[in-house]
Amino acid sequence: MTMMNECAARISALQEKLQQQELDGALFIYPIDVYYFTLTRQNSTLWVPAKGEPLLLVRKSLSRAKQEACIADIRPFPRSKEFAPLFEGQQQIGLCFDVTPLQQYNYYSKLLPERKFVDISMQFRTQRSVKSSFELERLRHSGTQLSQVFASMSDYLRPGLREVDLAAEFESRLRRIGGEGLVRMRAFNQELFGGLAVTGPSGSSSGFFDGAVTGRGMSDASPHGASTTVIEAGQPVLLDYTGVFDGYIVDMTRMYICGELSERMQHAFEVACQIQAAVVADLKPGAIASTLFAKAEQMADEAGLKDYFMGVPGENARFVGHGVGLELDELPVLAQGFDAPLVAGQTIAIEPKFVFPDLGAIGIENTFAVSEQGGEKLTPLADDLIKI
Amino acid sequence: MTMMNECAARISALQEKLQQQELDGALFIYPIDVYYFTLTRQNSTLWVPAKGEPLLLVRKSLSRAKQEACIADIRPFPRSKEFAPLFEGQQQIGLCFDVTPLQQYNYYSKLLPERKFVDISMQFRTQRSVKSSFELERLRHSGTQLSQVFASMSDYLRPGLREVDLAAEFESRLRRIGGEGLVRMRAFNQELFGGLAVTGPSGSSSGFFDGAVTGRGMSDASPHGASTTVIEAGQPVLLDYTGVFDGYIVDMTRMYICGELSERMQHAFEVACQIQAAVVADLKPGAIASTLFAKAEQMADEAGLKDYFMGVPGENARFVGHGVGLELDELPVLAQGFDAPLVAGQTIAIEPKFVFPDLGAIGIENTFAVSEQGGEKLTPLADDLIKI
Repeated sequence: MTMMNECAARISALQEKLQQQELDGALFIYPIDVYYFTLTRQNSTLWVPAKGEPLLLVRKSLSRAKQEACIADIRPFPRSKEFAPLFEGQQQIGLCFDVTPLQQYNYYSKLLPERKFVDISMQFRTQRSVKSSFELERLRHSGTQLSQVFASMSDYLRPGLREVDLAAEFESRLRRIGGEGLVRMRAFNQELFGGLAVTGPSGSSSGFFDGAVTGRGMSDASPHGASTTVIEAGQPVLLDYTGVFDGYIVDMTRMYICGELSERMQHAFEVACQIQAAVVADLKPGAIASTLFAKAEQMADEAGLKDYFMGVPGENARFVGHGVGLELDELPVLAQGFDAPLVAGQTIAIEPKFVFPDLGAIGIENTFAVSEQGGEKLTPLADDLIKI
Repeated sequence: MTMMNECAARISALQEKLQQQELDGALFIYPIDVYYFTLTRQNSTLWVPAKGEPLLLVRKSLSRAKQEACIADIRPFPRSKEFAPLFEGQQQIGLCFDVTPLQQYNYYSKLLPERKFVDISMQFRTQRSVKSSFELERLRHSGTQLSQVFASMSDYLRPGLREVDLAAEFESRLRRIGGEGLVRMRAFNQELFGGLAVTGPSGSSSGFFDGAVTGRGMSDASPHGASTTVIEAGQPVLLDYTGVFDGYIVDMTRMYICGELSERMQHAFEVACQIQAAVVADLKPGAIASTLFAKAEQMADEAGLKDYFMGVPGENARFVGHGVGLELDELPVLAQGFDAPLVAGQTIAIEPKFVFPDLGAIGIENTFAVSEQGGEKLTPLADDLIKI
């Protein structure tokens, strides 16, 4: 069975790493991490020993976990005193420190006294960054679905609508074709509701979001994405949305304009497309993420736009692409400091954008898979500015 | 200025607790916790000393935090070596262990060596559970807005639609009147995209969600809420949705039926409404949360429905209400073990529901504020079954 083989391959790749690190096994408690190895996201704790069969301990729902999970040994979460005996002789335990709350850590430390817990966040995220053909199929599907919605929006968009109307319409079209809505992010302090619909000066609002564009949002409590700003002719409209199907997230951006774009914006849009093309041509195994970012930044500089690249001057984000998969913020990041060579099957959203104070944001974004031929586009829609 | 006074009052209530516990101060790093005290959710770390002025250290965006935050001392997040000097003489530091990832804890432990960090999650959540009149105003607004959408759905709902169509329509109507979408939950392992639209047997799917009803969802990666199940005449349709405005969440459920409900379902619906009425009558300061749950369960028992109360037999959730506010899962919980007396201004979603295997779920839910007169209904819509 494909899904069984898929999970077995993922577990065995992890086990190889655990053995190299001389860990006795790894404990996964974060829902999407458990899902990655088992294909169930029921409330569970997964133990993967360095050698041997994994064990899934389910809190809720056991019946559903049994239907969904692609591993053999599934049990109800044991009572406290029955927990430790399951881990006899297991001393060095891998754990993702990035998503384990301190309360959970203290709880498991008490259940398993005198063990050494070791942070495996980075190696786990590195494993996750490379997608199998099973995963690439799902990402292609997400890309095709999301592209449809982007293509369809020209029949709705018109001056006089508010950003939030556009967001509501986009989100509901996406939902009707099966979009799951919930966008998982791993980074502490980040959160996102679907995406952004911003126009004119809203596009240059600064904010907490680790991206080029934040938007004003509906309130200071949700200071991100669409606001009640009204769309006007001649103002660029930027839609930056995720599509989530079967848990797999793709990310894309398209620009729309009612009327004509200013020359300055038109120029910036063309430069963004050129940067995307240059990065994508190099999206091959062995390419260095930080080099791709440097190249993108240099092209922005040569076009006289460096100050506006990936943010308003002084608040520029320092990346041009980010991994996507079961989470929106996977590895690799095309940014300074990411010097590991790319690997075939990594999936990366490339999003060169320019943000001009008081004028707004413009750019392009597609999701690509790293391949020998350069980036394979997973979001099959023309990059053109969409004129209404 | 109202908002300044509001924040000052929240900080001073916290400081009183910190002094009682002999803590030198508390560090808040989780976005919505920072928002609670400052009214900005920009990426920041908040220090509240037991005595004196709080300090907000902002990573991104400083300019926006300065516009939004209602405290005086706002600075860019310092370089590592400049961090410790800000905390000289501060030894016992409160921290919410429930939402602090281990990586963050290790980071702050290194920045502030030889400090003792103390878990203040419960006392902070207890403080948050009691809403000021400023907050109650916001919750009333959320309730009015959300009620509108529930009332409007009868012009859309009809047999032949899929659950996900209904979800898309509900979510987009909510968004157009300003709904922020993002629903924050505090509990580890819980997540929610807006709410549930379920019909017939979908309502009795078990799942990870800590509630009576989970729904099938669109995939095993998002096993919660609407699925592609088609709505049929005679099948109960349950809409359980949150409304988020200015960050404040209310929660409600209404039942819809195309045609006629079966006698068994009709009976269960009436019992749910009776349980709600009984709990709400007692929703006064001094009432004991666990007693209200026991009463609800007893009424279910007397009606011959105990096995189906709050879940399918054997997978019953053990509560009948939960606090709401900036997060969906606030204190108090009307459940066994919650023995503290209720306090005026606590806001609680009361949701008696029955779940029948293979038949589905039925029930009612409204959000109430605890008051001397019993629960004040914040979701102003009649509880009637809505017939199409």
